Amino acid sequence: MTIKERRSVRQYTSEAVSDALLLSIIDEAQRASNTGNMQTYSVVVTRDKAVKHALAPAHFNQPMVEQAPVVLTICADFHRFSVWCEQRDAVPGFDNVQSFVGAAIDAMLLAQNIATIAEREGLGICFLGTTTYNPHIIADVLHLPRLVMPVTTITMGYPATLPAQPDRLPVNAIVHTETYHDYSAADIDAIYTHKESLPESAKFIAENGKSTLAQVFTDVRYPKRNSDYFSKVFLDVLRTQGFLPEQ
Amino acid sequence: MTIKERRSVRQYTSEAVSDALLLSIIDEAQRASNTGNMQTYSVVVTRDKAVKHALAPAHFNQPMVEQAPVVLTICADFHRFSVWCEQRDAVPGFDNVQSFVGAAIDAMLLAQNIATIAEREGLGICFLGTTTYNPHIIADVLHLPRLVMPVTTITMGYPATLPAQPDRLPVNAIVHTETYHDYSAADIDAIYTHKESLPESAKFIAENGKSTLAQVFTDVRYPKRNSDYFSKVFLDVLRTQGFLPEQ
Repeated sequence: MTIKERRSVRQYTSEAVSDALLLSIIDEAQRASNTGNMQTYSVVVTRDKAVKHALAPAHFNQPMVEQAPVVLTICADFHRFSVWCEQRDAVPGFDNVQSFVGAAIDAMLLAQNIATIAEREGLGICFLGTTTYNPHIIADVLHLPRLVMPVTTITMGYPATLPAQPDRLPVNAIVHTETYHDYSAADIDAIYTHKESLPESAKFIAENGKSTLAQVFTDVRYPKRNSDYFSKVFLDVLRTQGFLPEQ
Repeated sequence: MTIKERRSVRQYTSEAVSDALLLSIIDEAQRASNTGNMQTYSVVVTRDKAVKHALAPAHFNQPMVEQAPVVLTICADFHRFSVWCEQRDAVPGFDNVQSFVGAAIDAMLLAQNIATIAEREGLGICFLGTTTYNPHIIADVLHLPRLVMPVTTITMGYPATLPAQPDRLPVNAIVHTETYHDYSAADIDAIYTHKESLPESAKFIAENGKSTLAQVFTDVRYPKRNSDYFSKVFLDVLRTQGFLPEQ
């Protein structure tokens, strides 16, 4: 799949993804830009059924975690770099939020490169946003040390079925010229007209007993009480992993 | 440039990047995976000399900001989505860290797609990690409203010079099988041998009057006092932009 044709794939054939192919994908993906060429990220490659089974609850048991031949947990990792520093008479100081943010950004650039290259090679992938909801479960199952924080997960395999491409906003909805220009009521109507006109949007609204598509997002899919709760979990795990020291 | 051949480009010719090309790149990049298909990101496209000049201090006056024909500031943006919710009788609840993290992750996937597509089209790009050091300056210059936070910046133009590709760690340095395996002293030596053997590493050490390459990173480039300071700035701006409410 090219970038233009791509769509997430959640169902995979039983065909294995060879180690040689996977390592060549990750090796090429490392060409992504990164901060100071420190490469403060790690990829945990999970194929073992028992480990995937242990990871599944962190992803609310979405079936692709156990069904995919390979699960990649992409981590912001200042541990390796810090160990190197200590072994070279240098005193590392990366136990802070800014180091996490930089490492997480670099990890995400690596992750998108892995996705693009994998799709070019005929594989299908799905990103799991649940990674930042339950990072404590993942850190525990994967034995992540201090200064390693999971930021995203990619399930990967050969596509069993290729779903339809989802809708996207018109490009002018996300682009601002020179500076940010706020949206008028008419702008918002224009931007969301297509999305709201789709049959699946009507279906979502009906299934959830709501009166607008937006209410499906705010009341059912991403209610404030959940986001607030998972915010607290995220900050707690960031603290446990050493990136958020008490001020 | 393909992903395998890519390298950051910091010097550009005076050739303009057309609006049509730029919009087609961003439109295609939107095919990246994103959380719940909410597309909670924005791209501010800056070409105006005065605006680039105002942005430059946020990036410590790195010359490519003013020299590049186009500067893209990629933002995590829950403002547009929240305005839509309010306009559709829904009560948005995205003023929290988890919403920021999700939006930032999606913004970075978009950013890497923009980079890959631009390079395929013959352009050169450079990511600016300084974006998260001085987000307050950027928010001010670009008039970013509440629930919009800059996460990275891409300078873009046709390459004037193509620098040598930088080194990367051997792929097995960043890959862990099944679970995270900690690094022995011998592992660390093996991983960093090549990097430490490079002539530019010896040059860095000599120029900075240090005795190891690691000390250049910990004492000169990324000292703890700076990272701690910029961590505080980042959290303050996250609070100002509405993503970190007082508990």
